[in-house]
Amino acid sequence: MTQILAGIGASSGIVVSKAYRLEEPELNVEKRIIEATDEELLRLDEALKQSISELEIIKDHAQSELGEDKAAIFAAHLLILSDPEFINAMKDKVTNEKVNAEFALKEVANMFIDMFEAMDNTYMRERAADIRDVTKRVLSHLLGVTIVSPGMISEEVIIISEDLTPSDTAQLNKKYVKGFVTDIGGRTSHSAIMARSMEIPAVVGTKSATSTIKHGTSIIIDGIEGKVIIDPSEEVINEYEVKKVAFEAQKVEWAKLVNEQTVSADGCHVELAANIGTPEDIDAVLENGGEGVGLYRTEFLYMGKMELPSEEEQFEAYKKVLERMKGKPVVVRTLDIGGDKELSYLDLPEEMNPFLGFRAIRFCLENEEVFRPQLRALLRASVYGNLKIMFPMIATLEEFRQAKAILLDEKESLKVEGIPVSDDIEIGMMVEIPSTAVAAKQFAKEVDFFSIGTNDLIQYTMAADRMNEKVSYLYQPYHPAILTLVNHVIEAAHEQGKWVGMCGEMAGDPIAVPILLGLGLDEFSMSATSILPARTQIRKLSKEDLHSYKDEILAMGTADEVVAFIKEKVE
Amino acid sequence: MTQILAGIGASSGIVVSKAYRLEEPELNVEKRIIEATDEELLRLDEALKQSISELEIIKDHAQSELGEDKAAIFAAHLLILSDPEFINAMKDKVTNEKVNAEFALKEVANMFIDMFEAMDNTYMRERAADIRDVTKRVLSHLLGVTIVSPGMISEEVIIISEDLTPSDTAQLNKKYVKGFVTDIGGRTSHSAIMARSMEIPAVVGTKSATSTIKHGTSIIIDGIEGKVIIDPSEEVINEYEVKKVAFEAQKVEWAKLVNEQTVSADGCHVELAANIGTPEDIDAVLENGGEGVGLYRTEFLYMGKMELPSEEEQFEAYKKVLERMKGKPVVVRTLDIGGDKELSYLDLPEEMNPFLGFRAIRFCLENEEVFRPQLRALLRASVYGNLKIMFPMIATLEEFRQAKAILLDEKESLKVEGIPVSDDIEIGMMVEIPSTAVAAKQFAKEVDFFSIGTNDLIQYTMAADRMNEKVSYLYQPYHPAILTLVNHVIEAAHEQGKWVGMCGEMAGDPIAVPILLGLGLDEFSMSATSILPARTQIRKLSKEDLHSYKDEILAMGTADEVVAFIKEKVE
Repeated sequence: MTQILAGIGASSGIVVSKAYRLEEPELNVEKRIIEATDEELLRLDEALKQSISELEIIKDHAQSELGEDKAAIFAAHLLILSDPEFINAMKDKVTNEKVNAEFALKEVANMFIDMFEAMDNTYMRERAADIRDVTKRVLSHLLGVTIVSPGMISEEVIIISEDLTPSDTAQLNKKYVKGFVTDIGGRTSHSAIMARSMEIPAVVGTKSATSTIKHGTSIIIDGIEGKVIIDPSEEVINEYEVKKVAFEAQKVEWAKLVNEQTVSADGCHVELAANIGTPEDIDAVLENGGEGVGLYRTEFLYMGKMELPSEEEQFEAYKKVLERMKGKPVVVRTLDIGGDKELSYLDLPEEMNPFLGFRAIRFCLENEEVFRPQLRALLRASVYGNLKIMFPMIATLEEFRQAKAILLDEKESLKVEGIPVSDDIEIGMMVEIPSTAVAAKQFAKEVDFFSIGTNDLIQYTMAADRMNEKVSYLYQPYHPAILTLVNHVIEAAHEQGKWVGMCGEMAGDPIAVPILLGLGLDEFSMSATSILPARTQIRKLSKEDLHSYKDEILAMGTADEVVAFIKEKVE
Repeated sequence: MTQILAGIGASSGIVVSKAYRLEEPELNVEKRIIEATDEELLRLDEALKQSISELEIIKDHAQSELGEDKAAIFAAHLLILSDPEFINAMKDKVTNEKVNAEFALKEVANMFIDMFEAMDNTYMRERAADIRDVTKRVLSHLLGVTIVSPGMISEEVIIISEDLTPSDTAQLNKKYVKGFVTDIGGRTSHSAIMARSMEIPAVVGTKSATSTIKHGTSIIIDGIEGKVIIDPSEEVINEYEVKKVAFEAQKVEWAKLVNEQTVSADGCHVELAANIGTPEDIDAVLENGGEGVGLYRTEFLYMGKMELPSEEEQFEAYKKVLERMKGKPVVVRTLDIGGDKELSYLDLPEEMNPFLGFRAIRFCLENEEVFRPQLRALLRASVYGNLKIMFPMIATLEEFRQAKAILLDEKESLKVEGIPVSDDIEIGMMVEIPSTAVAAKQFAKEVDFFSIGTNDLIQYTMAADRMNEKVSYLYQPYHPAILTLVNHVIEAAHEQGKWVGMCGEMAGDPIAVPILLGLGLDEFSMSATSILPARTQIRKLSKEDLHSYKDEILAMGTADEVVAFIKEKVE
């Protein structure tokens, strides 16, 4: 009987194929007391060595099949296995507590995993998966268990798995693997990112795919709606084949717009930009017709390292992005590390509410030795393109003024040193703390632009941690209070002749796009793959019509009313 | 040489006297392995018994000297010592780990202390002090060390101490102890509360009083400004004697206003109400001329217990408050427990950001078995006075509607059961989440009143945990964004003919009072001892003048500008 499973559409598209259950091997670890600790250390060393050489092979495979940047994951894995902090902690455990290597590995890995998972940053939390993955590999060697490799698949299938590890996905062959469904994960989990980069449909976070879908069953993945249809009838299959054709046709239509500007049906231009994390992400921005980079998150430069990145290293990264964007705007956000111990080489305090803590600009203003080299690197890179700089987590005018003063101070220093710096760098700020949205008029006089960070803005305005499942129902982008704040920010900026962008997930959301267009948002920054669908959507929308609904929308009582209204008006 | 130490003025007034250093005994605990665990358990039992009989004596002393409600602290201590969870954890440790009783006690106590201190609620964190206090007492008996008792003091002194434990303060004799200074603590710590109730000046949180002030030194405490003057000159002493006389005269002036209404210089009436935690607090409300209770925090009913309070128990408490207030308004806030494991008998999740978590109305709407008995108790009590009910942490209209529907449902049930319920109960909500302040117009249509909870509203609007020292500089009540939200809430309510109160610390603050009066706030709810000073202040202020500054204030860029402006206009 046909069954439908709901999940999160992590990668668009439709596919009909057979389920392939990728099972996790049993890797049970028992604690044993070992008197011969020297021998145990040798066993551990051997397993580490085997894991390293295996990873080298997978990395090479990934490099040739999936490209340089995807193979980088395995470089990161290799880095974990050569991290003395990680390795020595295990060895110390074996030596001091006289426990078996498996147990020592598991304990140390869990400690690191817990640490990463407790961090207030999706990216860092997902990195716990990397450690889990590496640990599994080393464990399999210690236990003499073979890990089933998805690289062995040689027929067209849809993979069903609890989760896909980075090494699983790196071995996926697009020729055979037509999509996948997982129990856990979200839109930003590793497997979701890989699916989008491989351009195969995927539904993640179904909770029960592995317990519901039997190996070999015929299934349909609808990555657009986030649905999995198990054991569909001929009729349903036909229906989805039609949908699939329509989707493919749509993709062709989208592709035609790569070099087009984004213009509404009534002739108003807005800018569709992309959010990026590394210079490598520029490929996708260009392929998808991004008109700029609306958010370059610089944290990645600081992560997975033993020390702060040098000014030079940062300069190279910023320069690369600016050069590749060839004069198109690139908005760089200065360091936004969290209030938790995210970077081992910085001594950050442990906090009870890290989302309301000592992070981003708050940290940078107190640690100028971290902040100034980044600003210098940015200023030096500014002559290679169209750079705009923005500060994260600004709550007060004093903070903005102080950050700007430090930036101008470094600019002055560089000029004295005879180093060229652009004189056209716009200096703006993120609007992600309610105080700045409420007092936007005051801020608008002093900034060159605003970029609304909806993820945090929603979280603070609703007082609900969006990572907390118990209150995630309060993460409501369409809540009239949120829209009122967004509208107020746009009006305040326009009064002063300044522009407003948005770089949260909301900017690419098909329900939000018409609302934001109507409110007069100037720049929409989203994940690269959302740009062409958004451009397509905007070309059909009348900005003037949408603007005329503004007062009605902002006076609504609930998010549900807003959604119903937009669906009715736009469709 | 004269030295000045800055701290927090915890209790007003001025006193000149000699420093008395109350030193903590050395209670060093070493871990020892004990084979004779039975004997060790006997030692522990003996120490517990001695502590209990000592506490009984102190409790009786406190009862006769300080009154019933202050003695309640020792009842709480006795409760800790008879809590099987606490006692059995210690005994299990002795038996299973074969450790000495001192070590077991210390370990178990620290676990409980850590748990309490991690809670997102000032009150609960301060309760960690109770456990520390009890632990010290039991330890002293185990170690055979005598604890110096402040009850032994027989000359006029000012106590200098790291902190004052509840049992220290209960032994203080007002005849000799003229004030105290501590290193740690804040306005809501136990020692601060006790100082206000004893009406002796106190400065807490000086950080270095014990290391700076020698026993026997002459000192002045200025509890109004939060200053300690060490070794003052004759001239300074004379100056403070004059200040003291002025302060005493002011207190006499204040006392004259106990039965007066609160009317501004231009004849506008506002209501000054009090925040309370228990029915016993009504004494202070009446003594200080409170025109109502603006916030009755019902959490205290749920704390320090092994199970939920019964409907009957709650009914009695609410009835008592309503009866004693004799028809004056009493605003009761429904249960606002935090997102952390605050109540051992409720299974609350651990959260990464408890301030943004599953708390208050979010918890109650999902746990009707906890919520409904409170509502029934309130409804039953409603016929004994002027009850108003408000819901905490409302973020969306749906939540308010749902909470109100449950309340009306219980009312209906009671009517069917033939139990009398008042038909004039106003139903309102706290405005403490930015979304509700921003969308106040929508909410104003459905509520009977708003009460602005500034502590949380400021915290969320500025995205800064006010308990976190690293970002506490962002806790800015006078920030134009906060004032803009407050103004918006008041305007929205008044448009619908509804009233607005404020029950955060801001409501009694001498800088905020003129601003709030000008914005049109209807009810100011504060700690009882702030009522008469606020009434005195308001009688001198012109509401119309203050109102005329509104636009200018709301357009300011920073909190500092606002403070400077108000100081200039009001003084």
